[in-house]
Amino acid sequence: MGEEKLGRFGVSMEESLLEQFDGYCRRRRYTNRSEAIRDLIRKSLIEEEWKENRETVAALTLVYDHHVPGLTEKLTRFQHDFPGQVIATMHVHLGHHACLEVIVARGKSQKIKGLADRLIALRGVKHGALTGTTAKI
Amino acid sequence: MGEEKLGRFGVSMEESLLEQFDGYCRRRRYTNRSEAIRDLIRKSLIEEEWKENRETVAALTLVYDHHVPGLTEKLTRFQHDFPGQVIATMHVHLGHHACLEVIVARGKSQKIKGLADRLIALRGVKHGALTGTTAKI
Amino acid sequence: MGEEKLGRFGVSMEESLLEQFDGYCRRRRYTNRSEAIRDLIRKSLIEEEWKENRETVAALTLVYDHHVPGLTEKLTRFQHDFPGQVIATMHVHLGHHACLEVIVARGKSQKIKGLADRLIALRGVKHGALTGTTAKI
Amino acid sequence: MGEEKLGRFGVSMEESLLEQFDGYCRRRRYTNRSEAIRDLIRKSLIEEEWKENRETVAALTLVYDHHVPGLTEKLTRFQHDFPGQVIATMHVHLGHHACLEVIVARGKSQKIKGLADRLIALRGVKHGALTGTTAKI
Repeated sequence: MGEEKLGRFGVSMEESLLEQFDGYCRRRRYTNRSEAIRDLIRKSLIEEEWKENRETVAALTLVYDHHVPGLTEKLTRFQHDFPGQVIATMHVHLGHHACLEVIVARGKSQKIKGLADRLIALRGVKHGALTGTTAKI
Repeated sequence: MGEEKLGRFGVSMEESLLEQFDGYCRRRRYTNRSEAIRDLIRKSLIEEEWKENRETVAALTLVYDHHVPGLTEKLTRFQHDFPGQVIATMHVHLGHHACLEVIVARGKSQKIKGLADRLIALRGVKHGALTGTTAKI
Repeated sequence: MGEEKLGRFGVSMEESLLEQFDGYCRRRRYTNRSEAIRDLIRKSLIEEEWKENRETVAALTLVYDHHVPGLTEKLTRFQHDFPGQVIATMHVHLGHHACLEVIVARGKSQKIKGLADRLIALRGVKHGALTGTTAKI
Repeated sequence: MGEEKLGRFGVSMEESLLEQFDGYCRRRRYTNRSEAIRDLIRKSLIEEEWKENRETVAALTLVYDHHVPGLTEKLTRFQHDFPGQVIATMHVHLGHHACLEVIVARGKSQKIKGLADRLIALRGVKHGALTGTTAKI
């Protein structure tokens, strides 16, 4: 948003649907309908971007057992095998065994998926989930 | 829609987002923005309805091997164990072994999920997917 | 399954995970672990099949208002525009206005998505969801 | 895994399904079938955990425009309103306007969803996605 020019248009819908939508906005704590609609639109656009192997941004969340021999070395090595893709990582200690690591990567969605598959398949990685987002705002 | 009264309101968004949204409408073949926005809103409302165990409607799609002994009898029996829930079914012959069956059910979303789990777990059922929708239009 | 030859192999996992998996099988009413594992595997295979535009089978569930002028004609016409794809349809009366229609189609996943998008975008179609499944069992 | 005792059991499936599963393992770069099956099981367990409002761990990914007045203050304030929930955050500069923030939180899944809804609804937050994971490994 910032200083960008705004466009405006009118939307019509059945009053019963409008009422339900207002309930939705209240439950999700939106302060106006435009904000809620912009979010719905952006969510759909990101789903498209992600399906079509365009340039995108993603956060990969891994939970793993750092006691498994060789695992942390492999996690680091595989990330470096994909140069230019991994921007940053964050590490959280969940328990004696459990580590959570979030890896933020940028690139074609297929390439990022390839990296994610490789990391999730490692022995000791207990759960992994890739969340696609966007840098085009 | 039919004869129901319409409500109208204005939406504002950055011009760059509006352009992207217009592309989305074209790709999905929407003839106007309102129709696309109504669909986005309804989709989100149905997701809520489904999470909160409200009265809802669903289509359960099963693919199974009708040669597995006793399977078709079990499929029928379990459906009748949930009286008032299953409205209609359709059967499609996909191949020598493969049958596709669509079961339309109405009721609390948790109950419908229970029926779906039971049917999907049967030996010979190869794939099952439950699609939540709504009767509130 | 039917008369097909079975393969067997051993699986090892931490006892705590095995216990949780047994709980999962009970809750989902699986009578043995193999059946649950076969279902998990098939579900992942279908997700792949669907992403890669292979030959597949899908059920499209639509909820619409049959009072909207011209809608039922358009629904029929668009289905016939995709010859060889639509295998069968089922129609359920949900209420005075609301109709549910399930359309079973076969073909490349991208083509089926195209048909689904076109139908969902029609005025009067309130909700549509496409469920991918498979004929390869 | 680490030093935990392992359980073992046999799995049987049609040879055609086994072949497809081996292809799946190769494409995902699993070095053995057990590792792939453990991942499928854990993924399903986490989906359950998340639906049933149990104690869980999640990563919330937000993309926002830091030029929107008051936004960064609100993001910080809302996170502190949920004491004991937010464990750590990471901030990535995606562009002149765009910021990506990953927030790792722990607690009941419903409470975490409430926090996520509140943050995603803020003006200037362009996309948000909540990824459920687990600390029980």
